[in-house]
Amino acid sequence: MLVVDSIRSFAYHERMQTPDGTTRKPTIGITMGDPLGIGPEVIIKALADPDTRRMGRFVIYGLNELLTYIADDLERHPFWFRVQHDSSRLERSISDDVVVLDYDEHDGFLQMHRRPCKQAGVVSKQFVEDAIEDAMRPPEHPRHLDAIVTGPISKDAWRKAGYKWPGHTELFAHRTKAKRCVMMFVSPRLNVALATCHLPLMDIRNTLTIGRVFDPIDLGHEACKMLGIENPRIAVTGLNPHAGENGLMGDEESRLIEPAIRVAIDGGIDVSGPYPADTVFIKAASGEYDLVVAMYHDQGLIPVKLLGWDKAVNWSLGLPIIRTSPDHGTAFEIAGTNKASEGSMKAAIELAAKLASKKIATTAPASIKSTP
Amino acid sequence: MLVVDSIRSFAYHERMQTPDGTTRKPTIGITMGDPLGIGPEVIIKALADPDTRRMGRFVIYGLNELLTYIADDLERHPFWFRVQHDSSRLERSISDDVVVLDYDEHDGFLQMHRRPCKQAGVVSKQFVEDAIEDAMRPPEHPRHLDAIVTGPISKDAWRKAGYKWPGHTELFAHRTKAKRCVMMFVSPRLNVALATCHLPLMDIRNTLTIGRVFDPIDLGHEACKMLGIENPRIAVTGLNPHAGENGLMGDEESRLIEPAIRVAIDGGIDVSGPYPADTVFIKAASGEYDLVVAMYHDQGLIPVKLLGWDKAVNWSLGLPIIRTSPDHGTAFEIAGTNKASEGSMKAAIELAAKLASKKIATTAPASIKSTP
Repeated sequence: MLVVDSIRSFAYHERMQTPDGTTRKPTIGITMGDPLGIGPEVIIKALADPDTRRMGRFVIYGLNELLTYIADDLERHPFWFRVQHDSSRLERSISDDVVVLDYDEHDGFLQMHRRPCKQAGVVSKQFVEDAIEDAMRPPEHPRHLDAIVTGPISKDAWRKAGYKWPGHTELFAHRTKAKRCVMMFVSPRLNVALATCHLPLMDIRNTLTIGRVFDPIDLGHEACKMLGIENPRIAVTGLNPHAGENGLMGDEESRLIEPAIRVAIDGGIDVSGPYPADTVFIKAASGEYDLVVAMYHDQGLIPVKLLGWDKAVNWSLGLPIIRTSPDHGTAFEIAGTNKASEGSMKAAIELAAKLASKKIATTAPASIKSTP
Repeated sequence: MLVVDSIRSFAYHERMQTPDGTTRKPTIGITMGDPLGIGPEVIIKALADPDTRRMGRFVIYGLNELLTYIADDLERHPFWFRVQHDSSRLERSISDDVVVLDYDEHDGFLQMHRRPCKQAGVVSKQFVEDAIEDAMRPPEHPRHLDAIVTGPISKDAWRKAGYKWPGHTELFAHRTKAKRCVMMFVSPRLNVALATCHLPLMDIRNTLTIGRVFDPIDLGHEACKMLGIENPRIAVTGLNPHAGENGLMGDEESRLIEPAIRVAIDGGIDVSGPYPADTVFIKAASGEYDLVVAMYHDQGLIPVKLLGWDKAVNWSLGLPIIRTSPDHGTAFEIAGTNKASEGSMKAAIELAAKLASKKIATTAPASIKSTP
């Protein structure tokens, strides 16, 4: 599959060479996610690998006591420098490779049961808000982030805390004023972008438009190029069984999907479909396509997770900042038992670092200083 | 995975021992499907294997000239006995292991392009109608079938021929007066039963009921037992992303799916859910469940085809007769090129033969005579 090879073939160096000759590692913000879920554990496990740590500087938005406890459980010395999240120390450059921004005023609820709760909702949202704010700062600011990797949050906990956001993606889109936002999943054998995502299945009727189908084709095409695929070949699924079988089952294919494909083709994109969803992913996984645009959550996520379990990364397209995340949730049922695998979190961190390095190498203005 | 082992552990003998001591092989009807599709090719390829032929007597409803042409292409002598489909010869027992019931009055259109056409629709439906009629005959009738395997038809060709049936399943259910009918897919790593199937995705809103969710649990439970699984463990998917995430995205889980599960549990079935569809198939494939009940076509067929490509069998539950079919369509684009794989057709024939043998062994009355 092209993508993996392309990721591997990124000219990644410990110190990127920018156009003006200065060099710096990308700074990656990592939000801890729900403290009661597996987020903290997979972050520590992922960053415990020196090879991963060498790919950037890392700023973890989280709870230091919890992270220390987990590191202890894994029989590792803390490998980070702790700073209070609102310390003025952050207005000056910190040279450590891993920094934990500590929100220790929220430590109180750590003895609670591992299920969605209001306090965890409040603090896990704060991590994300602060990381977005930092990512939106100008590159020369000491708190600037080149990318964000988000740990899994509980939508239920956010709701209990009174937040209306159905998830990370919508919050990112709103805060960064992104006009279009698409979820894409990158995995070794399959890349998938979604036309719709976190909504009741039956609401697709009121949500799917030609534009909603076009966006993942267009943004996915750009994203594939960022992954190093020169001429991405894109397949689009149908919404209905057998892609509607010539209008026998549903008309969304002719009414919405085909027009979107035609617009994209006119724009010079190598895209085709709509194809029956039960076979197109097999063709993509065997190398026939670089990206599949799926119409809704389960249609795209079932094959991504079946083929890329523990290796898939969620990448938010259309934002002015780079944001990735693992493809799993809080997994409350195994949190705290040291059973969570860090594979997907590691892949998310590495993709963020590689994309950020590439962005720095191609766009960094002369004003960016080298970090020591 | 339990299922495969169970299929293999069927006490299959060339001549089944019935309760009264007489023995006979099951007679399996195979309908050719659309003559312009890959049906004829995969049937010949599957039955060319003597091991498959040993599992029963086979009656192919099709076009002899086409089958002979394909066998010639595969460099095989015809291994069957031809009888005109309406010959009085059929009222007497035929001892040959493979019989082709020839509908040669329909041969005329064989030079047509390989795409849905009216003539192919007409004849491919006739094959099915006649096979159903024969399967419904009493066991002692010379034309009785113990099971039917259907080759792939074109729904579009059926429509061109003026038939309202969306597919095989609906026709079978109507002709056999089945009150409940459920599509189940059996494959080495994954068994899936569907709550809804060939309808526009957005019509699920008007179609899904507690009963529609209960039926595949109940019939799937029985089917698993027929496959030799003593205490089937069944998982049910949610309809919405993340199985609705506690009502955040859709209410079908609490309104329809959970009540159906409760009814099934009260009936003594080991069933749980609703589970997020993007992870439950992984658990089932790893052996945690014997069957997944999915809410709609693509949700169930994407994982079945990804994990069981060329090995999955469609089994119609709830009918008074045994009916299986391969999981692929007519594949007009490769028909006539000798590229089609017979794997799924072979698996469909073998499952039908095994289920029919088991049925004969456990239910055959004394009146059934041994065939020579």
